[in-house]
Amino acid sequence: MDFDDTWHPATHPSGAVLPALLAVCDMLPNNSKPSGRDFLLAFNVGIEVQGRLMRFSNEAHNIPKRFHPPTVVGTLGSAAACARLLSLERSQCSHALAIAASLSGAPMANAATQSKPLHIGNAARLGLEAALLASRGLEASPRVLDDTAGVAGFSAFYEDYAPRPLTSPEEELQFLLEDQDIAFKRFPAHLGMHWVADAAASVHKLLLGEQGSEVVGQVQDILLRVPRSKYIDRPFPESEHEARHSFQFNACSALLDGEVTVDSFSQDALQRPDLHALLGRVHVEHPHDNPANFDRMYGEVQVTLVGGDVLKGRCDTFYGHWRNPLTNESLRKKFRSNAGAGSFPERRWRV
Amino acid sequence: MDFDDTWHPATHPSGAVLPALLAVCDMLPNNSKPSGRDFLLAFNVGIEVQGRLMRFSNEAHNIPKRFHPPTVVGTLGSAAACARLLSLERSQCSHALAIAASLSGAPMANAATQSKPLHIGNAARLGLEAALLASRGLEASPRVLDDTAGVAGFSAFYEDYAPRPLTSPEEELQFLLEDQDIAFKRFPAHLGMHWVADAAASVHKLLLGEQGSEVVGQVQDILLRVPRSKYIDRPFPESEHEARHSFQFNACSALLDGEVTVDSFSQDALQRPDLHALLGRVHVEHPHDNPANFDRMYGEVQVTLVGGDVLKGRCDTFYGHWRNPLTNESLRKKFRSNAGAGSFPERRWRV
Repeated sequence: MDFDDTWHPATHPSGAVLPALLAVCDMLPNNSKPSGRDFLLAFNVGIEVQGRLMRFSNEAHNIPKRFHPPTVVGTLGSAAACARLLSLERSQCSHALAIAASLSGAPMANAATQSKPLHIGNAARLGLEAALLASRGLEASPRVLDDTAGVAGFSAFYEDYAPRPLTSPEEELQFLLEDQDIAFKRFPAHLGMHWVADAAASVHKLLLGEQGSEVVGQVQDILLRVPRSKYIDRPFPESEHEARHSFQFNACSALLDGEVTVDSFSQDALQRPDLHALLGRVHVEHPHDNPANFDRMYGEVQVTLVGGDVLKGRCDTFYGHWRNPLTNESLRKKFRSNAGAGSFPERRWRV
Repeated sequence: MDFDDTWHPATHPSGAVLPALLAVCDMLPNNSKPSGRDFLLAFNVGIEVQGRLMRFSNEAHNIPKRFHPPTVVGTLGSAAACARLLSLERSQCSHALAIAASLSGAPMANAATQSKPLHIGNAARLGLEAALLASRGLEASPRVLDDTAGVAGFSAFYEDYAPRPLTSPEEELQFLLEDQDIAFKRFPAHLGMHWVADAAASVHKLLLGEQGSEVVGQVQDILLRVPRSKYIDRPFPESEHEARHSFQFNACSALLDGEVTVDSFSQDALQRPDLHALLGRVHVEHPHDNPANFDRMYGEVQVTLVGGDVLKGRCDTFYGHWRNPLTNESLRKKFRSNAGAGSFPERRWRV
């Protein structure tokens, strides 16, 4: 979960769709497996739908406070993708989306816990379930996406919900996917961590240049200038899950090591005395020009040295952000590293 | 679902707990089936927890607009009950509740559809799942019920969430169940229908007294004075599910038949020309002194006859409401009628 592709407005679209579609492929009998093209079309439907829904609220442009986006739009995305791969009829597709709305949503409080990955996993499976229920004829509200004042449908999840009708496919239809901001994380943590990590990494270089090697002895005080977002502001994270949601942890790890990697969240790394010494010197500020918004936020790390000198690092656009995308080589490296750990059954679709 | 016991603040507590506990009984090996006493204790824990949660919001005292209460508090109630029956440890109980919060919630828009019963069914199964995940060691936020401004836990579901800590069991603990308002529906429809149905039934008697038999020919105009609640205000319901959520339908059925029963929602009953004639004469008013609150609302039916005479019926407290509870005989009759349709496996607990 904490290594997923991230959109702006922010959700992780793929994880809610891909497992559900693989499950549909497994379910379908051998003589009616979908083609690779069918599979990709369904995948695109699933993530296009999520993007449309994310744009029904301005609240959705900011780092979430109430509901975890993958469980909100992801469930409907999974339902839409599965409905497509199962070739449901138009009205069944509508019911599948509406049933999915009844299976959506999870509060943010579980974000920095083991249960966070449940959210997108459930989005995938419950969306599939919604599509299967609709295929058996179960009906739900055809107006679940409408903005019906007084009775909440999908609007229950947003304070400022304002749906926009899709132009008919016969008219000129611009797919979101053709113009979608997508970030790829370089390390498995909340996306917001990437800004402070890069800012701190640049201070790390200055520190090494100045005195040679030892970081902790030089640092008197660390000031982070980051957006205000309570669930990623954790001075002393106790678990790897909390560490993945801590500005302080990621800044200090990068100050110490020059980067944040998969290994930065291991038990050994978490328990390093040097890291804890640095964490004890961190202060946090939330400048007004630094909103909790992945398109406009920045990360700034200001280190006061024991001698009184001040070193600064700032990151406006980390490597992996949509304004500074990973190269294909970096993407391939990430894919191989992630996929290498798994084992895969024989292929699920026709070539 | 539309025949469930109803609490004030409103939820249907039993349906979210009982099926999950029966499933736990089935799961447990023969040599460790729970006693009937264990079973009842777990059931009480499950509904006590729901009652506590319902009291964390004043919004919850009114007929819901955003989320369907059984999916909100019911999932945590099921988790609590299952955690009890599985004898989870204290911290596992806390995680079970927190995991359940990630599986809670369904928007109201599906209320008058086939999918409404999914909500409480999912509450039951997902609460059980939360307890099983916690029993395997899965962790979630121990502060999910706290009111942590900025990051929503359970507060995501209410605009005015204000949790109250439980007094320690060592101190004097008053169980909610000892003083809980519970309504039992006489017919399977939204609880709010019972007021207009009783008011209309009293007008039905006056109509019969006045002219003998034929109702439709006498009635020129029907005015309903009911609370404002959009999802139960349906002038011309098209399905049985919509009919169960229509002030208009229930008032006209009772005007015509003198009562509303299980059969009032059959396809034949729905399609009666007399009923549609009456529906066409209904107007609705929402007096300011008639709030969408099951403790304070009333139903008033005012019929203007063709000759100009006006007949009125009013119901402040229907038979089955907590201020006017069903007799044990009526309850037994309802139980036998509902349970008669099912078949039951051998017993699931030790006697």
